[in-house]
Amino acid sequence: MRISELSRASGVPLPTIKFYLREGLLPAGTPTAPNQADYGHAHLHRLRLVRVLMEVGGLGVAAVRAVLDAIADERLPTGAVVAVAHRALGPPPDAGPVGEDVMRARAEVDRFLADLGWQVPRDAPARRTLADALVALWRLDREVDAEVFRPYARVAGELAANELQTVPTTAPRAETVERVVVGTVVFEAALSALRRLAQAHHSASRFSGGLQDGHA
Amino acid sequence: MRISELSRASGVPLPTIKFYLREGLLPAGTPTAPNQADYGHAHLHRLRLVRVLMEVGGLGVAAVRAVLDAIADERLPTGAVVAVAHRALGPPPDAGPVGEDVMRARAEVDRFLADLGWQVPRDAPARRTLADALVALWRLDREVDAEVFRPYARVAGELAANELQTVPTTAPRAETVERVVVGTVVFEAALSALRRLAQAHHSASRFSGGLQDGHA
Repeated sequence: MRISELSRASGVPLPTIKFYLREGLLPAGTPTAPNQADYGHAHLHRLRLVRVLMEVGGLGVAAVRAVLDAIADERLPTGAVVAVAHRALGPPPDAGPVGEDVMRARAEVDRFLADLGWQVPRDAPARRTLADALVALWRLDREVDAEVFRPYARVAGELAANELQTVPTTAPRAETVERVVVGTVVFEAALSALRRLAQAHHSASRFSGGLQDGHA
Repeated sequence: MRISELSRASGVPLPTIKFYLREGLLPAGTPTAPNQADYGHAHLHRLRLVRVLMEVGGLGVAAVRAVLDAIADERLPTGAVVAVAHRALGPPPDAGPVGEDVMRARAEVDRFLADLGWQVPRDAPARRTLADALVALWRLDREVDAEVFRPYARVAGELAANELQTVPTTAPRAETVERVVVGTVVFEAALSALRRLAQAHHSASRFSGGLQDGHA
C-alpha cells in the first residue's frame, strides 16, 4: 500500500508517519517510483506497536527506539528485552544526590525483595519507583514499612507468573518478545484502570449515605 | 517557620513554593511582618501532599487543585472525592470522534463491568483506559475479548476491598478522604512497580539460558 493508505489504515497522520520514518521507528518501504514506496502489513503492525508503546506506555521516541532495537536483536534473550522495556518505562536514573529518606526506603525495598526471594537486577528502575512510593507515605505521616506492599507483591507475583506461563515458548523469538513487551505495557494500564474501577465500586458501597457520610 | 525553612524542611525549592502560593495550592501563611509570614506543620503537610499528587500521580496544577478542593469540601462524601481523584488521574474526555474499534471496546468493557457486578459511574475515565488497552491488543493482532482482563479484575477487586476496609471510618472526614486519595495514587504506583519487579524475576527464571534462549 502507499503511505497515504498506511495512514488511513492505521489512523496515524501522514506527517507523524514521515517523522517515524526519519527517526527510524518505522523501516522504509520498498521503492516503487521516485518519491514513492510500498508498505506492507509489517509496516502497519510496526506502526501500531509504536503507537501502543507511546500512547499506552507513555514512552518517548528514544525509549521506543531502544525497545524496538531490543526486540529486533536476535542475540538478546527475552529477559534482557523485558529489562530494556522496564528501563524505557522509567523512571530515569537519579539526576543528582537523593535524600536520606529515599536512601533508607531503597534499602528497605531491597531487603523486602530479597525476603520475597525475587531476583531482580540491582539497577531495575521499579526498585526506585517502589522506594519513592514508600517515601511518599512517610512524608504524609503514614507510619509504615515495606511490609505494607506485601499484599500487592503477592498478587503482582501471581499475575506475572501467569502472564509468562501463557507465552508460547515455541513461537519465533521476535513474536515472543514483542508479546511479552506489549503485555508489560498494556496489562499494566489495564490493571491500574481496573483498580480504579474497583475502588469506585467499593468506595460507593463503603462510604454510602450521601452528603452526611464520613463527617467527623 | 519562615518560607525559607518551609523550603528546607520540604525539599521544595523556594520559587516552586511561591508558585504554589500564587496558584492557590498552598494557603497563605500567617503574616508576621511586611513581606513575611509564618508557616506551620499544616503547610508542610499540604506541600508534601501536592508533591505526591504531582510526582507520583503525575497530576498537573489544575488537577491538583480540583483534588484539594474536593478533599476540603465537607459536603462531598468520600466516594465523590475518589471520583474527583480518578477524573484528575485521567485520561481527559474524548477530544473528538473515536474509531469504531474504540466504540466496540467500550461496549465490551461496559458489559464486562456489569457482569462483574461493579457499580461504576458511566463517565469514569478508567472505563476508557481499559477499553484503550483492549483496542491496543486488537490492533496488535491479539484475538481476545474483555474476558482477558478477568484475572486482573479479580485481584484489583480484592485489593480495593482490602484498602477501603483498612480506612478508619471514625477519623475526621478530611483525614479519611486524604488517606483514600493518597492510597489511590501511591499504591497504584507501587502495584505497577511490583508487577515489573515480578516480571523481571519470573522472566529471568522462565526465559533463562543466556544468549541462546528463545531463538526460533
